[in-house]
Amino acid sequence: MATRDSLSLAIASTQQIDPYLPHVSSSNPSLKPYVTLTFATSLDSNLSLSPGTQTTLSGPLSKAMTHYLRSKHDAILIGVGTANADNPSLNCRFEGVGGYGGQGLEGQPRPVILDPSGRWDVSEQSKVIQLASTGRGRGPLVLTYTEPQIAMKELLEKVSGKFISMFQQSNTKESTPRFQWADLLAVLSREGITSVMVEGGGAVINDLLHPSNITLVNSVIVTIAPVWLGKGGVQVCPEERVDGGSKVSVGRLGNVKWVPLGDDVVLCGRPSV
Amino acid sequence: MATRDSLSLAIASTQQIDPYLPHVSSSNPSLKPYVTLTFATSLDSNLSLSPGTQTTLSGPLSKAMTHYLRSKHDAILIGVGTANADNPSLNCRFEGVGGYGGQGLEGQPRPVILDPSGRWDVSEQSKVIQLASTGRGRGPLVLTYTEPQIAMKELLEKVSGKFISMFQQSNTKESTPRFQWADLLAVLSREGITSVMVEGGGAVINDLLHPSNITLVNSVIVTIAPVWLGKGGVQVCPEERVDGGSKVSVGRLGNVKWVPLGDDVVLCGRPSV
Ligand SMILES: NC(=O)c1ccc[n+]([C@@H]2O[C@H](COP(=O)([O-])OP(=O)(O)OC[C@H]3O[C@@H](n4cnc5c(N)ncnc54)[C@H](OP(=O)(O)O)[C@@H]3O)[C@@H](O)[C@H]2O)c1
Ligand SMILES: NC(=O)c1ccc[n+]([C@@H]2O[C@H](COP(=O)([O-])OP(=O)(O)OC[C@H]3O[C@@H](n4cnc5c(N)ncnc54)[C@H](OP(=O)(O)O)[C@@H]3O)[C@@H](O)[C@H]2O)c1
Repeated sequence: MATRDSLSLAIASTQQIDPYLPHVSSSNPSLKPYVTLTFATSLDSNLSLSPGTQTTLSGPLSKAMTHYLRSKHDAILIGVGTANADNPSLNCRFEGVGGYGGQGLEGQPRPVILDPSGRWDVSEQSKVIQLASTGRGRGPLVLTYTEPQIAMKELLEKVSGKFISMFQQSNTKESTPRFQWADLLAVLSREGITSVMVEGGGAVINDLLHPSNITLVNSVIVTIAPVWLGKGGVQVCPEERVDGGSKVSVGRLGNVKWVPLGDDVVLCGRPSV
Repeated sequence: MATRDSLSLAIASTQQIDPYLPHVSSSNPSLKPYVTLTFATSLDSNLSLSPGTQTTLSGPLSKAMTHYLRSKHDAILIGVGTANADNPSLNCRFEGVGGYGGQGLEGQPRPVILDPSGRWDVSEQSKVIQLASTGRGRGPLVLTYTEPQIAMKELLEKVSGKFISMFQQSNTKESTPRFQWADLLAVLSREGITSVMVEGGGAVINDLLHPSNITLVNSVIVTIAPVWLGKGGVQVCPEERVDGGSKVSVGRLGNVKWVPLGDDVVLCGRPSV
């Protein structure tokens, strides 16, 4: 297999980031998966210029880092908003993983898509399907509340992906019902996934940063690019938090390391709420 | 003079930041002042939890850096929103400057307050007045469109500060008339100010980041703290920019350096629009 498209990264950079990654020794299938929250923002905390578009924020070194991270996780998770807006590849193109110089699908993460109402606009032409059908990525798991069409089921099964029906509490008061993160992680665990990298987009990240969910996160790796995108973008800015009648910060990272990478910086840390 | 309250910083840190500071050789009073835009934000680009409050974002080393920067500028500029919310000191407490181990007022910057409609809530008890009247800071310059009360004038003049009336174009269509940055900088230049550090708050920073103003900025120094403040804060997020019918980024920094400082990072750069 040609490695023309593959990415690599200097050992100096990977060594700085490695302490924040899941380790094989901690892989205990009875536990919740190790959760790494990772994304790239502008200085004004935007993920993209607008909801329907993909914005290239970070430089080539940061991109290589993302693929390095992917090679270290069993799964990559995104929301259906990103799946529809970006037509993402959701595979790992790091040098030496399966499909990019390595054997089989070794090192390829499983794509996981949160699609409660079945609005993912997937087809044979979607990058994630194309890559999986040519041995350069795994078939996706789609977590949903709806009953998928037969044709969709077949499309996914052909690339060893599948739909997983989530249990919906009938007494929910929410207008847009949401999976609980603890349930969702338990489902992934049952699928043999011991580590998951949550990549976005805005709604998913802000939900995971909520004080009741952030304790499920083991490490956070954020790339910041020295650019302002301005108002109207998809922003990482969680719901406000009030404690004893006063507004307080939503979350802080401890065990912090800042790693300059090209023009960007990579922040590694662990939630310390 | 006791130096009990004074701050200091390791030479290693100052050496990294120095290339982004004004230099004596570039001080030409006929030119516009050297403009350094500097502030501290959370990861979600908030300056504070809410408009009326001051939020301690960055750690002690970043605070020392701010005072180091102040020692290198002739003036510090803020908007009246910050003047009212924070009751700020607006002086320099870096070891060795006037009032903190040094002679007279050497190294003390001139506070400049943008107060077009005369709503600064200043009194003898305001920190900036207290510090100026005890030789630990300079009296403020207040840029305004209104005619100040005699008592206010006297309060400022007693500490060698003053009001400066700005020329207001009568045909302006704006509901809240704004000083043009080029005019404002020309006024400061006439006051002998060769360098100014713009410190905030949100309205002032977003205005200066506007594409028509950012070219006036010589360097940007942003401290980022590893915390999320959440929705409802005072955010740095400039107005969106549209070019050829599409949304584009508002501004990018070139010549970038990221300097980790305690748990925070300091981003130094120059606008490259
Ligand atoms: N810079 C980066 O690192 C980065 C990374 C990823 C994405 N992005 C950008 O982000 C943008 C998309 O963000 P987005 O906020 O629109 O979409 P998103 O977060 O990708 O997806 C949001 C949708 O996912 C579903 N969802 C989220 N949390 C859920 C939960 N707990 N349980 C069940 N379903 C859940 C909901 O679907 P329903 O509405 O159907 O209920 C929700 O509307 C795009 O512009 C993309 O380019 C940037
Ligand atoms: N983290 C940090 O580094 C940092 C630094 C400073 C401040 N802050 C925080 O920021 C918050 C205050 O921000 P803010 O946005 O409310 O206030 P602000 O930016 O300090 O002041 C805004 C006001 O200044 C005047 N102004 C701004 N630009 C002007 C221009 N070009 N010409 C004329 N007048 C101009 C206007 O007064 P009129 O409305 O009267 O027209 C405007 O409403 C506070 O919570 C403070 O703690 C944080």
